[in-house]
Amino acid sequence: MAVSMDDDVPLILTLDDSGSSASAPLDELDREELPNENGGSYDVVNDASSPTAGDCCAQQSSARHNWEMNYQEAAIYLQEGENNDKFFTHPKNAKALAAYLFAHNHLFYLMELSTALLLLLLSLCEAPAVPMLRLGIFVHATLELFALIVVVFELSMKMRWLGFQTFIRHKRTMVKTCVLFVQFIEAIVVLVRQTSHVRITRALRCIFLVDCRYCGAVRRNLRQIFQSLPPFIDILLLLLFFMVIFAILGFYLFSPNHSDPYFNTLENSLVNLFVLLTTSNFPDVMMPSYARNPWSCVFFIVYLSIELYFIMNLLLAVVFDTFNDIEKRKFKSLLLHKRTAIQHAYRLLVTKQRPSGISFKHFEGLLRFYKPRMCARERYLTFKALNQSNTPLVSLKDFYNFYEVVGLKWKAKRNREHWFDDLPRTAFLIFKGSTLFSWQHWFCYGLFPRFPDTVVAVNGIWILVETFMLQGGNFFSRNVPWSYIVFLTIYGVELLLKTTGLGPVEYLSSGWNLFDFSVTLFAFLGLMALAFNMEPFYFIVVLRPLQLLRLFKLKKRYRNVLDTMFELFPRMASLGLTLLIFYYCFAIVGMEFFAGVVYPNCCNTSTVADSYRWVNHTVGNKTVVEEGYYYLNNFDNILNSFVTLFELTVVNDWYIIMEGVTSQTTHWSRLYFMIFYIVTMVVMTIIVAFILDAFVFRMNYTRKNQDSEEDNGIVLEKEISKEEVIGIIELYKRISAATETAQLQKIVLQMDKYGQMSAVFLGRRSRTKSDLSMKMYEEEIQEWYEEHSRKEESQTPLQEPASASSSSLKPLSLRQRSQTVI
Amino acid sequence: MAVSMDDDVPLILTLDDSGSSASAPLDELDREELPNENGGSYDVVNDASSPTAGDCCAQQSSARHNWEMNYQEAAIYLQEGENNDKFFTHPKNAKALAAYLFAHNHLFYLMELSTALLLLLLSLCEAPAVPMLRLGIFVHATLELFALIVVVFELSMKMRWLGFQTFIRHKRTMVKTCVLFVQFIEAIVVLVRQTSHVRITRALRCIFLVDCRYCGAVRRNLRQIFQSLPPFIDILLLLLFFMVIFAILGFYLFSPNHSDPYFNTLENSLVNLFVLLTTSNFPDVMMPSYARNPWSCVFFIVYLSIELYFIMNLLLAVVFDTFNDIEKRKFKSLLLHKRTAIQHAYRLLVTKQRPSGISFKHFEGLLRFYKPRMCARERYLTFKALNQSNTPLVSLKDFYNFYEVVGLKWKAKRNREHWFDDLPRTAFLIFKGSTLFSWQHWFCYGLFPRFPDTVVAVNGIWILVETFMLQGGNFFSRNVPWSYIVFLTIYGVELLLKTTGLGPVEYLSSGWNLFDFSVTLFAFLGLMALAFNMEPFYFIVVLRPLQLLRLFKLKKRYRNVLDTMFELFPRMASLGLTLLIFYYCFAIVGMEFFAGVVYPNCCNTSTVADSYRWVNHTVGNKTVVEEGYYYLNNFDNILNSFVTLFELTVVNDWYIIMEGVTSQTTHWSRLYFMIFYIVTMVVMTIIVAFILDAFVFRMNYTRKNQDSEEDNGIVLEKEISKEEVIGIIELYKRISAATETAQLQKIVLQMDKYGQMSAVFLGRRSRTKSDLSMKMYEEEIQEWYEEHSRKEESQTPLQEPASASSSSLKPLSLRQRSQTVI
Repeated sequence: MAVSMDDDVPLILTLDDSGSSASAPLDELDREELPNENGGSYDVVNDASSPTAGDCCAQQSSARHNWEMNYQEAAIYLQEGENNDKFFTHPKNAKALAAYLFAHNHLFYLMELSTALLLLLLSLCEAPAVPMLRLGIFVHATLELFALIVVVFELSMKMRWLGFQTFIRHKRTMVKTCVLFVQFIEAIVVLVRQTSHVRITRALRCIFLVDCRYCGAVRRNLRQIFQSLPPFIDILLLLLFFMVIFAILGFYLFSPNHSDPYFNTLENSLVNLFVLLTTSNFPDVMMPSYARNPWSCVFFIVYLSIELYFIMNLLLAVVFDTFNDIEKRKFKSLLLHKRTAIQHAYRLLVTKQRPSGISFKHFEGLLRFYKPRMCARERYLTFKALNQSNTPLVSLKDFYNFYEVVGLKWKAKRNREHWFDDLPRTAFLIFKGSTLFSWQHWFCYGLFPRFPDTVVAVNGIWILVETFMLQGGNFFSRNVPWSYIVFLTIYGVELLLKTTGLGPVEYLSSGWNLFDFSVTLFAFLGLMALAFNMEPFYFIVVLRPLQLLRLFKLKKRYRNVLDTMFELFPRMASLGLTLLIFYYCFAIVGMEFFAGVVYPNCCNTSTVADSYRWVNHTVGNKTVVEEGYYYLNNFDNILNSFVTLFELTVVNDWYIIMEGVTSQTTHWSRLYFMIFYIVTMVVMTIIVAFILDAFVFRMNYTRKNQDSEEDNGIVLEKEISKEEVIGIIELYKRISAATETAQLQKIVLQMDKYGQMSAVFLGRRSRTKSDLSMKMYEEEIQEWYEEHSRKEESQTPLQEPASASSSSLKPLSLRQRSQTVI
Repeated sequence: MAVSMDDDVPLILTLDDSGSSASAPLDELDREELPNENGGSYDVVNDASSPTAGDCCAQQSSARHNWEMNYQEAAIYLQEGENNDKFFTHPKNAKALAAYLFAHNHLFYLMELSTALLLLLLSLCEAPAVPMLRLGIFVHATLELFALIVVVFELSMKMRWLGFQTFIRHKRTMVKTCVLFVQFIEAIVVLVRQTSHVRITRALRCIFLVDCRYCGAVRRNLRQIFQSLPPFIDILLLLLFFMVIFAILGFYLFSPNHSDPYFNTLENSLVNLFVLLTTSNFPDVMMPSYARNPWSCVFFIVYLSIELYFIMNLLLAVVFDTFNDIEKRKFKSLLLHKRTAIQHAYRLLVTKQRPSGISFKHFEGLLRFYKPRMCARERYLTFKALNQSNTPLVSLKDFYNFYEVVGLKWKAKRNREHWFDDLPRTAFLIFKGSTLFSWQHWFCYGLFPRFPDTVVAVNGIWILVETFMLQGGNFFSRNVPWSYIVFLTIYGVELLLKTTGLGPVEYLSSGWNLFDFSVTLFAFLGLMALAFNMEPFYFIVVLRPLQLLRLFKLKKRYRNVLDTMFELFPRMASLGLTLLIFYYCFAIVGMEFFAGVVYPNCCNTSTVADSYRWVNHTVGNKTVVEEGYYYLNNFDNILNSFVTLFELTVVNDWYIIMEGVTSQTTHWSRLYFMIFYIVTMVVMTIIVAFILDAFVFRMNYTRKNQDSEEDNGIVLEKEISKEEVIGIIELYKRISAATETAQLQKIVLQMDKYGQMSAVFLGRRSRTKSDLSMKMYEEEIQEWYEEHSRKEESQTPLQEPASASSSSLKPLSLRQRSQTVI
């Protein structure tokens, strides 16, 4: 019995089990179809100390246990490969594994995220608080302490998993620890003194958010920003240098003109040229000197041409270039990292006797840990999709495609005519009838293929004309306009016809249909709101013009643009979040220094006094309010600060905000605004570079694959025969996995019902940037792989101990100690 | 004799000379070393009707003449290839040739250019004239008529050269003719009525400038702009579409607020969102609604995020992508056009007997027409550089490199120690002494390699501090500051040492040294101005800070940036000129409609009245002038219009100018400003795309050639032996070209002096974008060539008559008729 088990011994256990490997290799699938007396020992595994098992059984269950450990470790490797976690953070022993498993699930991640968000949101309630959300110092300080303690707990789990040595070496974690320490002390100080002091360090709270597992994209963005920084700074220096030269020149040229307030000192000259760089004060800064001597405009034209039109674009070019380069290198390193992860996992999954591949049994074991939610059918299909050869084993070469295949969603290929064939009889007949109608509808499409689009266009023009006719006032007090009802009816009918024709699932799987659906739904809700006079929902009616967006389906370029937009969306969102994190830091700093410094009529000594004016004077018998409004752009609470910072980002007239604040504080306040400008310039340039890169990349891609038809993602087709399914059922029965067996039996029943001997399944997933890159760099990738394997080979004598310590030696120790812990 | 001449009969004369080609092929160089009784018949060629030649001589001179014709036509082909002139404009007969030659020299080009400039500059003096340049209507209309008549003359020459058929088919020329016609009529009308009417057509005068030979780059830019337009317009529509949607939404949301003047009608809503797209009215447009409800900022943030940060960047991406694509296609078509031109020229230069290559004699004949200024030595070196094989003939394959080689400037490689070795004895000794000192200087550099840079840096800081200490007033009334003299002395000494060390020519051949030199010279002139109190030259002193630019030599990235800047300069200048042409059109239109509409205190009814205010009131005993200055941004004459248009290009606060003009005219004036915004947006986007493309291209190039050393252009080395030179002298003697012979003899003398048997020459030229592209697309170019030749081959049966008509038949007719004309 023990000998027959040898066949199933993991390769990397060879070191201690080397004596008992004498059995002849047998085809595993054949063997597994033999009745297996040990069926059910999988269940015992989690409780290895169970005293009921005999000696032989114990040995066998220990082998099983070893396998379970291997599956788990392989799954961890694959996860690390996917998340780009470095392998030196790989859990090294059973205690670490327990901590690792504890710290790597969505509950823990959610806790991390919510703690971070809580800490960030505290600034809504702290000292310069949003009026409605103001909390007592005791309350918010206690909340903060609580959140910080949770963070301490998270960090201690992380330390348990990483070990002290690795923990110390992990930079991000160390920074987090330091920040945590500082925050802790400050929170306690606040609690003790019962008053908030100047706490700029609150700006560092962002690091808790950045460190969240879910914010990996933000971390990548930040890394990319920092990597793009050196060339950026070089060009920035060039920019500042020219600015200084022109400031000196401007000072010499224009300071003799006493009516020119912009160049009367060198400092003013510098500040105004900095503002001029953003064009924010443009014609104004030129006007006094231009009025005196028309030729002085040459100075400004030359300055703007050099700084704004040349160097600023140069900045973009340099960042774009660096960005391109970084993207490619990142893709390369990610690809190679994944490859290494796959190699590690592979080594843990092959058996000692047949090191040429992974059998389904072990692959299934891996997937149970890697993707617990996957059903038995999908596991087998994934295995089949990976297995390019006809042998029952997946070789390393095939296994390299793991990440591409594992994401596929498998569905049986429909060989029925309609989606409602499975529904009960009455429903079937109703839908059948509506489909007949729907076919007429399609026919109608054939005659007037642009009919729905024409309706949308007419609707658009209608809305435009209708709105043009209105002259202010409250638009919602009247009755529901009949045009609204007519168009809504047409949309509703179209939606119904399409849904019945395609089936709700397929209908909603297209983004455009989803959009149609939601727009029509909103319009309907708007109608309801109008009909029942529910005022708070009027905003829905206002969204009506968004229907016009449908027109953009018509042209291929727009479809491309919008598709790219959707593809870019996650990345854009992460960039937006990155920007928000910068905003948060600056908002905190701004609030600490500038809260309450601007108010109506505050800046009468400055040149921008008009913008802050709020006069309420009487002309004749009418009260006229003269409002400059700019006092609204303040740092009085975090929401106001965000709006103010957005205004600073848009750049126009930002100097009014700057001058207002400066006139109420010191000259040094300008530094805050200038640094903010430069930081947002960096982030914005990177966003522009990103959009440029993504679009140019995609356009190149479409140009390269012009002949290949348009497809909506990756599709793979696999056929499985009844015998195969029955074979797998046997396998699952042996390990008494009841749910899996039931799932698979359903497939067999299905096949029997339709009298088929095999079923075809389609695997589908959307195309990612990585897929595009794979295709674009096809040739280079081969070179990278070769280079990588060459490097590995040449490093083998050196790296062997290291790789052994991370992949074969440590799992051993993990395995040895696991029995005592789990 | 006639038989021996056959050896030298052009290939493409085969058709009529086919009877007499029976002689055995002889090596031409050998033959030409035989004494040639017909030496000097070259001189007779230009006067073929000379009655002194006998029958035999006449036949021979007619053969010579044929050769001359062939040389000229080949040179024309090569010029057409270089200038990307289509071959259908190739002169077809002797009359056309005469006209072609007349219309293709710098005198004619200059005439074209000056006429066009005269016409453009006339707008300085016409109706809304610059005050100082105002001319009577009679004067400027006469001037205009004169210029137009010159244009008529130019066009008639062009028609003579092209022939009526081609002339009609040439679009640009036809448009020019129409514009000319209209201008003519209008000029006469003005003369007759003695008053200027609304002449918007003056905006079309630009076409005369665009059509100039020297403005080829502008034409290319315009073409590129028009080619980028379709995708641009697509995205623009998307932009405008979102604008309309948001305008409707904004109108619904904000028009109930009566204190919000920005959204009270749909038109205002649209206009303000258009302005918001340029961010020009940003926080202001939001303020009234923000004051009422803080959440209304969401509308503006969403609008700006979609329109400004997404779609505008998308616009850049699309233009950049199209631009990239167009650049590559343009490069390809230019390359293939040049190749075809070379093929045409080659066919005209090979002899009937030896169609495998061109001999030096014929190559020399070609160069005499193609580059008349080239000296004999350079002609031979070019020939040698082309000739890759060791045969005396240049094959077609070698001849393909013609354009790369012909631009090289040849210089003897110095084998002397110092540049002043050739100077008289005393001068030699002086320079020798200074060089010894200079070597010490270099040694000093070795010890303090950064010494001059440190001086510049110290000087920079000094200037900054000095300026910071000054507090307004007149800075030039004092004495010359001693620091000025100290630094100038250091720079002067450095300059002297470097010049003596390297020699003036080599010193000034480096751009950086040239820059150093001119900066030091300017500083010296400034010192003179200060010392002798010459006030008008004070501006030179002001330029002192520019010296700091030297610091940018230090870092490689800056050197790269600045080098690229210099490389880009011609192209940038042409883009700037293109922009100016658009400015001119808009300036004329603006002047016709808006001249004199804005003046101080003009726009009291508009929302921007403050900016146009000019109040002179007394507070206490002081007169306070409140000036809005914006009335200076008017269209009162063309110079003012240009400044105003520049302000509109910079975009900030452009709506103040727009609203000012609108309040004095009609709502439709806004169209002018909006169209101008869109046009400049197109041009600016293209400029950005161009800068991006150029820099990214160059950076890719440097990345690709990282290992190859930095070189300043293309360098080629060729050795020629004394025998070769003597051989060529013989050749020239035979055709009695005295100057060439003298030049070559000087080389022989030089060689004798130094006792050398051969001399080495270096050919050098700066690297152009085309060279970079050649290297970047290396592999693709081969494909293009193959594809091109395959296409030609497959088209041979079809194309033969066409190519024959353009390359072999037409030259024949040209030759047949030439004797009667020239």
